Amino acid sequence: MIEEIAKKRSTIRNFHERDVDFEDILKILEVARQAPSGMNTQPWRFIIVKDKGVKKKIREACEEAEMRFHPKVAKWMRDWLSERGITPVKPYLTEAPYLIVVCVDETEPYSKESVWLAVGYMLLMTKELGLGTVTYHPSSTAKVREILDIPGSYAIETILPVGHPAGEKKKEERRNLEDLAYKDRWGTSLS
Amino acid sequence: MIEEIAKKRSTIRNFHERDVDFEDILKILEVARQAPSGMNTQPWRFIIVKDKGVKKKIREACEEAEMRFHPKVAKWMRDWLSERGITPVKPYLTEAPYLIVVCVDETEPYSKESVWLAVGYMLLMTKELGLGTVTYHPSSTAKVREILDIPGSYAIETILPVGHPAGEKKKEERRNLEDLAYKDRWGTSLS
Repeated sequence: MIEEIAKKRSTIRNFHERDVDFEDILKILEVARQAPSGMNTQPWRFIIVKDKGVKKKIREACEEAEMRFHPKVAKWMRDWLSERGITPVKPYLTEAPYLIVVCVDETEPYSKESVWLAVGYMLLMTKELGLGTVTYHPSSTAKVREILDIPGSYAIETILPVGHPAGEKKKEERRNLEDLAYKDRWGTSLS
Repeated sequence: MIEEIAKKRSTIRNFHERDVDFEDILKILEVARQAPSGMNTQPWRFIIVKDKGVKKKIREACEEAEMRFHPKVAKWMRDWLSERGITPVKPYLTEAPYLIVVCVDETEPYSKESVWLAVGYMLLMTKELGLGTVTYHPSSTAKVREILDIPGSYAIETILPVGHPAGEKKKEERRNLEDLAYKDRWGTSLS
């Protein structure tokens, strides 16, 4: 069941205008809430952005940051991005019915590990609900923090636009398991 | 479905002697393999440790590191740990039929985020299979890297002992969703 969801899931950057049930957003958060965390500190906080004005401001802040960042990235990255049509323009930040802004208290033990583990839970749940998302990270989060009034020790780890996928999206290819896993020590084949 | 698995899952530190099907370990890895990663670099590598001698060496190295580390942790952490009977002794590193050592190439973009997202996938799959695990992180990984011959740019992110849970284990309490999620900006209640 999870295997099938994981296999079918691919990153979605294009969304239908069709709205998403708020109940579905709550289900995604409900699953995140159940994730384990370093010493059970549950260092995550989520801001659910539905307001169009706020989404617009976030998009503008992110696009501005991307414009500054893009010329600086390594060539292989720029090529990878441009092959996929990924540019500093981020329509999904306004087109997705919801943004889930995932924040973490960086002062808590293993906070980064914990929050990303919870993001893994969220991605699977999103797919189970027939919805799509991308784990977007703004090149600079300073402006978005200001817009959302995020306090000192919390970092924005990712912004998840959530919506109904528009069109088909092929999953990126994965390496074979034999190239990823070893037996008893590094480099020893599994079989 | 995922919601139910996430809710029922709790961290397991005590395992039955009963063996685990290798097929189940492969299923857990299969799910990890499907996770998204920064620019699809799939920066993770997994070492499946079944050999008793290797597990013993890993346990010794980890316990030695924990002995050095424990006296240094903050008082609230030590109290939290001792309430749960968590000491520098790590029986699960030899008692679980399998250890999955999760490594990541730290030079890849968003490698830490990616690998922990994949660990989230793995935890849910482990639970779906009726198995248990704990995301153990040794206080120092130097010795374990040596034992497993892990090369330069790869870090050990976690060691997952995988086995059949021994006895019941209560899930740690979770905060209410209202305390974790806001609407449109930090601090604004969801409802």
